[in-house]
Amino acid sequence: MIKLFLSQTGEHLHTFTGHDNWVRSLSIHSNNKYLYSSSDDKTIRIWDLTFGKEKKKVDAHEHFIAVVKFNPKYGVIGSGGNDLTVKLWHLK
Amino acid sequence: MIKLFLSQTGEHLHTFTGHDNWVRSLSIHSNNKYLYSSSDDKTIRIWDLTFGKEKKKVDAHEHFIAVVKFNPKYGVIGSGGNDLTVKLWHLK
Amino acid sequence: MIKLFLSQTGEHLHTFTGHDNWVRSLSIHSNNKYLYSSSDDKTIRIWDLTFGKEKKKVDAHEHFIAVVKFNPKYGVIGSGGNDLTVKLWHLK
Amino acid sequence: MIKLFLSQTGEHLHTFTGHDNWVRSLSIHSNNKYLYSSSDDKTIRIWDLTFGKEKKKVDAHEHFIAVVKFNPKYGVIGSGGNDLTVKLWHLK
Repeated sequence: MIKLFLSQTGEHLHTFTGHDNWVRSLSIHSNNKYLYSSSDDKTIRIWDLTFGKEKKKVDAHEHFIAVVKFNPKYGVIGSGGNDLTVKLWHLK
Repeated sequence: MIKLFLSQTGEHLHTFTGHDNWVRSLSIHSNNKYLYSSSDDKTIRIWDLTFGKEKKKVDAHEHFIAVVKFNPKYGVIGSGGNDLTVKLWHLK
Repeated sequence: MIKLFLSQTGEHLHTFTGHDNWVRSLSIHSNNKYLYSSSDDKTIRIWDLTFGKEKKKVDAHEHFIAVVKFNPKYGVIGSGGNDLTVKLWHLK
Repeated sequence: MIKLFLSQTGEHLHTFTGHDNWVRSLSIHSNNKYLYSSSDDKTIRIWDLTFGKEKKKVDAHEHFIAVVKFNPKYGVIGSGGNDLTVKLWHLK
């Protein structure tokens, strides 16, 4: 099911492209299906590790996102940055 | 009890406003009830996830707070920044 | 034994002073006895939470320390910064 | 087997040299055998803690690497930086 992880032929599994500015923060979902990233392009993106593509793009903040913290136990994400707000997300 | 998390109608659960400067660091309490944030406004804030509002504002440091680390097992928080001090907190 | 944590009278448990420059990174030991900090003063310091004072000061790197990561399972610390080296420590 | 960790004679276990620019991010493998580092020299390096030397050097990104996150459960690493990409690695 988690196709990418079955590839043992090389060390590099996948390159996910899409962000339009620096990538600042990353988190890997505890069920190993999603990779979350935040960027100076003001978006949080969810990358599907099974299919190796972008699953969702969220216009999350009005300015740079300094930090994204994933709580694996509850499946929620907190984000904050220089738009002065803290946001809580349920991304799946 | 944790009302916000029962909302499955959208991905965005809540925006917490209050910080007067960049948000630098975040942590989600292990019992899923609080979100902690530190900011260049020199405060640590505790956000109540059940009621979706600020629970406490702590004037924590004399200058920017570079890092906040939450120890979920013991419920303590360490903070440090450019006022040269390391502080230990029991926030609840 | 962990005296500081028995104090429930206030939210602020302790301020640890000693670093001569910005505090960049923090970690709380899993047994709750020590707090580790790294700083632009090139040192890693271990703070004794039981007695509320500095336990050890390590002149760790030749320049700023960008990151300190504590592995609670094995009691080792990795550090790195802008002196281009990665160092491994057994601090106790 | 994990030789470095048996040395109790001093607090400093090892200095790993090799990066040509600032070290930004570190992670210690959950089995305690490897230390991962990312650097502004655009590489991720895997340091063998048993033998105290560099095990692998990966030319990972085209520009500075801002963040490396290791998922200990699945043995994969995510990396991202200012070349706008997020990469997934299976490094061993």
